[in-house]
Amino acid sequence: MKIALAQMNPIVGDLPGNARKIIDTAVQTASQGAELVVFPELCVVGYPPMDLLDKEDFIRSVEKTVEQIVSDVPQEIGIIIGAPVRNPSDTGKRLLNAALLCEGGKQVKQIHKRLLPTYDVFDEYRYFEPGQHQGPVEWRGITLGIHICEDMWNNEDEAPYHLYSANPVDELAGKGIDLFINTSASPYSTGKSEVRADLVKEICMEHQKPFVLVNQVGANTELVFDGRSGVWNQKGEQIVMLPGFEDGVAIWDSDTGGDPVHTEFNDLADLHDALVLGVRDYFWKTGAFEKALIGLSGGIDSAVTCAIAVEALGPDRVMGVTMPSRYSSTGSVSDSEELATALGIRLEEIPIQPAVEAFESMLEKVFRGTKAGVAEENIQARSRGLTLMAISNKFNYLLLTTGNKSEMAVGYATLYGDMNGGLAVLADVLKMDVYRLAEHINLRAGRDVVPRSTIEKVPSAELRPDQTDQDSLPPYPVLDVILRLYVEELREADEIVTHTGFPRELVLDILGKVDRNEYKRRQAAPGLRISGKAFGIGRRLPIVMRWHR
Amino acid sequence: MKIALAQMNPIVGDLPGNARKIIDTAVQTASQGAELVVFPELCVVGYPPMDLLDKEDFIRSVEKTVEQIVSDVPQEIGIIIGAPVRNPSDTGKRLLNAALLCEGGKQVKQIHKRLLPTYDVFDEYRYFEPGQHQGPVEWRGITLGIHICEDMWNNEDEAPYHLYSANPVDELAGKGIDLFINTSASPYSTGKSEVRADLVKEICMEHQKPFVLVNQVGANTELVFDGRSGVWNQKGEQIVMLPGFEDGVAIWDSDTGGDPVHTEFNDLADLHDALVLGVRDYFWKTGAFEKALIGLSGGIDSAVTCAIAVEALGPDRVMGVTMPSRYSSTGSVSDSEELATALGIRLEEIPIQPAVEAFESMLEKVFRGTKAGVAEENIQARSRGLTLMAISNKFNYLLLTTGNKSEMAVGYATLYGDMNGGLAVLADVLKMDVYRLAEHINLRAGRDVVPRSTIEKVPSAELRPDQTDQDSLPPYPVLDVILRLYVEELREADEIVTHTGFPRELVLDILGKVDRNEYKRRQAAPGLRISGKAFGIGRRLPIVMRWHR
Repeated sequence: MKIALAQMNPIVGDLPGNARKIIDTAVQTASQGAELVVFPELCVVGYPPMDLLDKEDFIRSVEKTVEQIVSDVPQEIGIIIGAPVRNPSDTGKRLLNAALLCEGGKQVKQIHKRLLPTYDVFDEYRYFEPGQHQGPVEWRGITLGIHICEDMWNNEDEAPYHLYSANPVDELAGKGIDLFINTSASPYSTGKSEVRADLVKEICMEHQKPFVLVNQVGANTELVFDGRSGVWNQKGEQIVMLPGFEDGVAIWDSDTGGDPVHTEFNDLADLHDALVLGVRDYFWKTGAFEKALIGLSGGIDSAVTCAIAVEALGPDRVMGVTMPSRYSSTGSVSDSEELATALGIRLEEIPIQPAVEAFESMLEKVFRGTKAGVAEENIQARSRGLTLMAISNKFNYLLLTTGNKSEMAVGYATLYGDMNGGLAVLADVLKMDVYRLAEHINLRAGRDVVPRSTIEKVPSAELRPDQTDQDSLPPYPVLDVILRLYVEELREADEIVTHTGFPRELVLDILGKVDRNEYKRRQAAPGLRISGKAFGIGRRLPIVMRWHR
Repeated sequence: MKIALAQMNPIVGDLPGNARKIIDTAVQTASQGAELVVFPELCVVGYPPMDLLDKEDFIRSVEKTVEQIVSDVPQEIGIIIGAPVRNPSDTGKRLLNAALLCEGGKQVKQIHKRLLPTYDVFDEYRYFEPGQHQGPVEWRGITLGIHICEDMWNNEDEAPYHLYSANPVDELAGKGIDLFINTSASPYSTGKSEVRADLVKEICMEHQKPFVLVNQVGANTELVFDGRSGVWNQKGEQIVMLPGFEDGVAIWDSDTGGDPVHTEFNDLADLHDALVLGVRDYFWKTGAFEKALIGLSGGIDSAVTCAIAVEALGPDRVMGVTMPSRYSSTGSVSDSEELATALGIRLEEIPIQPAVEAFESMLEKVFRGTKAGVAEENIQARSRGLTLMAISNKFNYLLLTTGNKSEMAVGYATLYGDMNGGLAVLADVLKMDVYRLAEHINLRAGRDVVPRSTIEKVPSAELRPDQTDQDSLPPYPVLDVILRLYVEELREADEIVTHTGFPRELVLDILGKVDRNEYKRRQAAPGLRISGKAFGIGRRLPIVMRWHR
């Protein structure tokens, strides 16, 4: 049987648009002889639909859209699409997360997701009731082990938050199947593509069955989906692989199998591609903006953000602004000029001194007798933020936020200043990884897109004379190790001290800074999630609290 | 048996502080002859602990704290305290939400919460496994139907999101009990105290048993808990009532019963008290600020916010700033002066013209040839926001945000401008209710604290000549009706048109505005939740999406 894998990039809530993509793909793959085309989890609504699922009108529209898809696809092809369906039971959550097998203008089978991720960025139990055990699906002479995303993730090593009592994959295999089909909306994080592929490989080897995985691709606000759909044979060798971070369709003939393909993952290249896709999809899917706008400081974060934006949108759709103050180094402007020239983007220079002086005069009476400090530094950052927002509002440009995860972690950023923007491109990228990204970008381009001087200078916010980041923070190689262990791996102070050998005071100081700055992050722009634990919707800590180790 | 109801105000994560309160209350009530003292749900950690529950260190500290409490309370008294405990099962979520009955230095019984709210602001299934049916607890000769918060809420009328298959209260009653004990952390929303009391009354009448309810009081970031703990007799008459919005202890003798108390709820007074408590607890529980700071525009929102802050913190801890521009009415300053005088607070006047002119000159080249519009209006709002943040940073004052729910709903607010602040006091209060609050405040004071001219003037952002809110929005009495139906009652366009008779275009326009402005609200300050559906942690909508009716 020829099975098509439709690695689709849906827009959340865009029912007509998603339906059009599904129907077009079904038409195209049917004409290529496919008998079955498999789409990702919840592809009709896009993942994650969040509280749209609480809207009765939305669910009614989903039902109509599913009817339309089922009647408009070629009648001879089978499709597996994902959509929320109503829970027929009197009790439990109102919806089920379903994969619908349809053919000949009808739904012939509903499969309900059984393991509902409710941790980190996932809130599925907020909307869905877990499905009951249903067994395999007999269809056109073969027995399909259809299941949905998390249903294959009952794996002790992958369950930091809990362990499921059911193992749908084992149960399906136990009933006798010809092949597994998993429809997913499994978001990317560093290394996740490989972990997912390894898990599929193990399942194939354990049960000696081939496995078809179709994963969503594309970015929806914070979440980036890598796609990387594929087919694995019963030995666990991958024989079909769709690309990462772009949509695509592959057709696999289950009767003829296929030769193993070469799979290799490069974390840095994936990180780069994930961020580019994240910016591109935010921009085009909102459809609200003319261009992207970036404040260029001459530093590494804004340079990398700008390079990524240009790759995502093209140089004509990106504008940079350099906003020197009396504390700016000469490199602040000249490195920004070099970057803008290398990228071929428009650059404007707007010195902020007039605004800073105006606020100083306005505040003179109230501030009299005080020493200059953070308040004065923040006036500069906020004057820049205000200038950028004025341009953003005037010309309908999307302001991209440039702060990295290390800064956001310890609150080394100005709320309503450099934190301004619609999307924080590097919000989940630790500072040392920003440097790696810069080198990757230059290597890829075969020239120094990010200026050498930007990469080599000592990091500084340039908000007072001779300031460097290391006045306030440990060196980034130290800081990043602590942050990765604490934020991403949920390790605690004692473990971090033991693991790193860093002084206990230093570790406690950093952990305290992370905890205390929750109030800033709560008001931060959404950031692209590229790690296993990003600040944002997947990390929910109280602002008013007194937990101290 | 003498049972004490300890209506406690815990601080989230403050294990030593919460333990101290529990121990002190146990000592005090034991000395008054109580045999059993009942504390609220999760009182050891404070509700909601959120992702603190994912920290192994935190859970270990909770275990130590519980041990310490159990050993330090008077040995002759029984206590029921709430804490997360480890799930002993190999599968399922790592924790259980438990009520611990302790006496004589030991835990004698654990009761696990069975119905786990996972909707709106509640994420309990993120952390907890549902408890199994356990039956009543025999203790010192009486049979206690101990259960936790949501366990009593399996009531068809009260389940907009789902219906539970278990009914713990009925099951307990079926096993034969002498009285119900419910430990709660049930947050306030308008009318909720009465709904909760009515539910308890029904349960008493159905099962002919008395009911002891102990609810948390106090505010933790967004959530305000009303307390209103009490005892109801087997006829459903309330015979003990602890106050709303303040902590307190009552002792009830189950052998002698008691006479019905007079219960009457006033939604407007409750709203007022909830906001005052919300500001007070944010301020004191963070412990980070010297004073509160408010930008006073002469309008109703900032006046009411300021009056509430003064009630919460006292006039010496509140500072107002009036920041007129060329478009400000004379009332902008004079009404603010009148308010500040009436409240006895310090007021500073800082005209923003120097900053606005500085930005105009800085942006002249980039803006050349464009027409003045929203960009220019926002420069004013953001110059004010920057001025307030400078004062906030300089003197360590908590900036209170003054925007109301109607504005936040339709995006009639400037991000990084008037939206600046640490806590949005009126973020969940519709505009017409802000007027009602103003009248309530004046009535309560017996004089016009909020100036008559502030109440009577036509609402305006004063960002361009002769601007009024009604240039952009329908009149607030119309807007608020639509918003209440859409946001709070989750009604859809057709229903709203039918229900109100408003033109369909108008309704669709407002609903579209609400949906499109999610991006602004994502970066808003946390707001005090006082309705059944507030913007904030309990309303989770995608930013990048294309759901259009």
